[in-house]
Amino acid sequence: MKLSVRTIMIETGFTPVVTINHRDAIRYDLHPRDRVLLEAVGKRQKRRVIAVVDVSNADRSVKEGTIGILVEAASELGVTDGDTVDVHPEQKPDAVRLIRKKMAGETLTDKEYDRIVKDIVAGALTEVELTYFVAAASIRGLDMEEVAALTKAVAQNGSRFSTDKRPVVDKHCVGGVPGNRTTMIVVPILAAFGLTMPKTSSRAITSPAGTADTMETLCKVSLSLPEMKRIVSSAGACIAWGGSLGLAPADDKIIRIEKPMSIDAPGLMLSSVMAKKYSVGSTHVLIDVPFGRTAKVTSRKEAEELKQHFLTLGKLLGMRMTVLLTDGRQPIGNGIGPVLEARDVLAVLKAEKDAPADLREKGLLLAAEMLEFSGSVKRGAGYEVARDILDSGSAWKKMQEIIAAQGSNGPLVLGSKRLVVRSTASGTVREIDNLAISKLARMAGAPITKGAGLYLHKKAGDRVQKGEALYTAYADSAEKLRHVRIYDEKLRPFTVR
Amino acid sequence: MKLSVRTIMIETGFTPVVTINHRDAIRYDLHPRDRVLLEAVGKRQKRRVIAVVDVSNADRSVKEGTIGILVEAASELGVTDGDTVDVHPEQKPDAVRLIRKKMAGETLTDKEYDRIVKDIVAGALTEVELTYFVAAASIRGLDMEEVAALTKAVAQNGSRFSTDKRPVVDKHCVGGVPGNRTTMIVVPILAAFGLTMPKTSSRAITSPAGTADTMETLCKVSLSLPEMKRIVSSAGACIAWGGSLGLAPADDKIIRIEKPMSIDAPGLMLSSVMAKKYSVGSTHVLIDVPFGRTAKVTSRKEAEELKQHFLTLGKLLGMRMTVLLTDGRQPIGNGIGPVLEARDVLAVLKAEKDAPADLREKGLLLAAEMLEFSGSVKRGAGYEVARDILDSGSAWKKMQEIIAAQGSNGPLVLGSKRLVVRSTASGTVREIDNLAISKLARMAGAPITKGAGLYLHKKAGDRVQKGEALYTAYADSAEKLRHVRIYDEKLRPFTVR
Repeated sequence: MKLSVRTIMIETGFTPVVTINHRDAIRYDLHPRDRVLLEAVGKRQKRRVIAVVDVSNADRSVKEGTIGILVEAASELGVTDGDTVDVHPEQKPDAVRLIRKKMAGETLTDKEYDRIVKDIVAGALTEVELTYFVAAASIRGLDMEEVAALTKAVAQNGSRFSTDKRPVVDKHCVGGVPGNRTTMIVVPILAAFGLTMPKTSSRAITSPAGTADTMETLCKVSLSLPEMKRIVSSAGACIAWGGSLGLAPADDKIIRIEKPMSIDAPGLMLSSVMAKKYSVGSTHVLIDVPFGRTAKVTSRKEAEELKQHFLTLGKLLGMRMTVLLTDGRQPIGNGIGPVLEARDVLAVLKAEKDAPADLREKGLLLAAEMLEFSGSVKRGAGYEVARDILDSGSAWKKMQEIIAAQGSNGPLVLGSKRLVVRSTASGTVREIDNLAISKLARMAGAPITKGAGLYLHKKAGDRVQKGEALYTAYADSAEKLRHVRIYDEKLRPFTVR
Repeated sequence: MKLSVRTIMIETGFTPVVTINHRDAIRYDLHPRDRVLLEAVGKRQKRRVIAVVDVSNADRSVKEGTIGILVEAASELGVTDGDTVDVHPEQKPDAVRLIRKKMAGETLTDKEYDRIVKDIVAGALTEVELTYFVAAASIRGLDMEEVAALTKAVAQNGSRFSTDKRPVVDKHCVGGVPGNRTTMIVVPILAAFGLTMPKTSSRAITSPAGTADTMETLCKVSLSLPEMKRIVSSAGACIAWGGSLGLAPADDKIIRIEKPMSIDAPGLMLSSVMAKKYSVGSTHVLIDVPFGRTAKVTSRKEAEELKQHFLTLGKLLGMRMTVLLTDGRQPIGNGIGPVLEARDVLAVLKAEKDAPADLREKGLLLAAEMLEFSGSVKRGAGYEVARDILDSGSAWKKMQEIIAAQGSNGPLVLGSKRLVVRSTASGTVREIDNLAISKLARMAGAPITKGAGLYLHKKAGDRVQKGEALYTAYADSAEKLRHVRIYDEKLRPFTVR
């Protein structure tokens, strides 16, 4: 791919590094990685920057009496070549000592996690120092009290949503199953019932669509915190993209450090999920854990363990939690890709006859569980209440209200190019590979091309004749469909026997 | 302190980061922290740079179709705003997978450490990835086979010194005792005997003088590898600064990552010391471990453990090792600071009557041990041989030869300002605090002011009368001596009872 160059000076959110000559380092008793406070001399604006010292033995590049400042930090400080800066020794932030403690295998307290997170958010740590924290948390592990402490610290040191309404309900799916857009069904049902649900969602990273991408085909999802407050107070709920709200900012930095090593530390994952719930003031949280051979959670045992962790953490955080283990053996619904999934969701909300039954049922199941578990209806009555809200059109009316409040978007347009993929054998669909379906939908252009993706004509258990359509791929170019065709033959997402 | 600004573009030795728009990331299936190969389009010079991808949701700062490149990397690539670069996906280096393995608690093989070190030296790792390696090595620990594997890998992936002569002898002191300049006595004795000793030394970081700083008062120490080879082949030995030779470059990067967290992982420390010995082809290595309350190694137990580690490691590396536990309860010699220490060394080499006896004896002891242990003289005969070489003037002649070969420097000049610090009590000197003496000598200006430092008139065991001189401080300004005076009263380096 070809891209146009734009030289940039980025705000990394980490402490900048300045270079001084080794003789000055000795003269002023500064050691490599000591912190200093820099202050511009003789400028009207007294800007100050805290930096970390690097010591250079190369007398030619950094002469005695000079200080090398990266262009980025220099501009932040408002100085340029030949200007003078005053340099004062500065203490290391407390977090450094606490991270060392965690590296040594000690357990940290609530106060200590709060201190670490404050320093992360303030940009007082270098990228290297934060990496030591993530490595220590990953290798030493966090006990559940520590996970709770970190979760609270991450949520409390960031923007927060609050309301006087009770309960404040929330749901989260651990992911890995394409088409699983239950949030867009559960939220309007519960809001129509009268529950408060300030829902934040993510965009796709490796999948063909996140809830935020799908919701965005219907309305605006990049809301500010005041917009979110206004919408929830009028409609009782929203479905917003979490990225623009400034919730749990430390979590974003931690995730950036986990990525290069594909760190998958249970403690950090749990705290990342729950910090977002904590920061919107959720009182009741439902976790959906789909498991299956090609899902993210691959076995019932793994799903059960995860369930126990969430329940323990919920208790420590003072949040009511319920965890459902669900069927993750194939995609949910028929559409895969933002517009195709939105069409499925709307068909369910409009109670259309040909709406995907599995998506409808899963949506009702989750809504029912939340109604009962939040004490809104008595045990056993949830399903009927949810179904009535859906079938009466109340949920659809509520969804229209939410869409209008967030700012409605243009009509749903499917990709103009189509490819029908047919079965090469007769028999029963035994399995549909979640990973292969995700890959093919992304090849078709999802989620960046909103109307691209796959429509599944058959699901596991269905009878199929040789030559019958298994799925239709939608794209905006024939080229992409050629790729789908080639990879379909390699990946064989449908097992028919 | 005030310093003049010089905005810089540094070569960090780590993989640079480029920023692309989130839509392009999805379009080209790139994820945060993926690696890409950048190539300038339409330039005569086809320069290529491997970078790590950061994905931005901020459409305004990095628009679709553009790529944000830090000024540093852009100049390396020879591109500027508006130029086009071709972007290809690039595999992560193998080291990343291996570091993950070490984080998980597995033991790595020789080949795997070699791969990691090759990627470190090539700059193929980001600073964050290298930090995970240091954290894993520190928290999980390295067994002695792993330390040996890392040591060899670090030495082999760097410049090396080699000779056909045998034995090639070397010594190392773990440090913490001021004035302990035995290297400058041992090297000329052993070289005068006919042994080959390509000695590399360090500069002071937290002490008032390193061997390289002290030797530099007599001659040039920043040698290139060819210069070192020429000198060792003519004089049989050298005393060079290790920093300019390009030996064990991975070690320098690892140390830079250890600093911010004051990581003191035994495995990494041992490999750091021994890699330098391995890279100059040492066959016989003597390790001096001074221990004492105010030294770096504070107890005999700790010293014994360190000794066992060195002996085990030596076996695994195929190097003969001997470890001496020595008296670290007070400074060695009388002078503290580059010129003052060089004067002590010269007095010993010239066999002057008032040469410090402890420095002379320790030098002879170490030289004797090396002569015997390397099989050059029979057990029990080493001390007499070493003493004869010293007292006959052969060692001094050899030292002059080495100084001339490295390039002799101007005469020794002591700081012009003096302060005599006197005892406030009569009695016996019980102890001299190594840390306090270091601190006061640095306050006087050592090592940056070569002629600054302390001259100790009394050592532990000496009788002293109230009002008698304990030490004289030398500096180039009265201001510095005022500080020495103030801190002397706080630190009280001499215990007289």
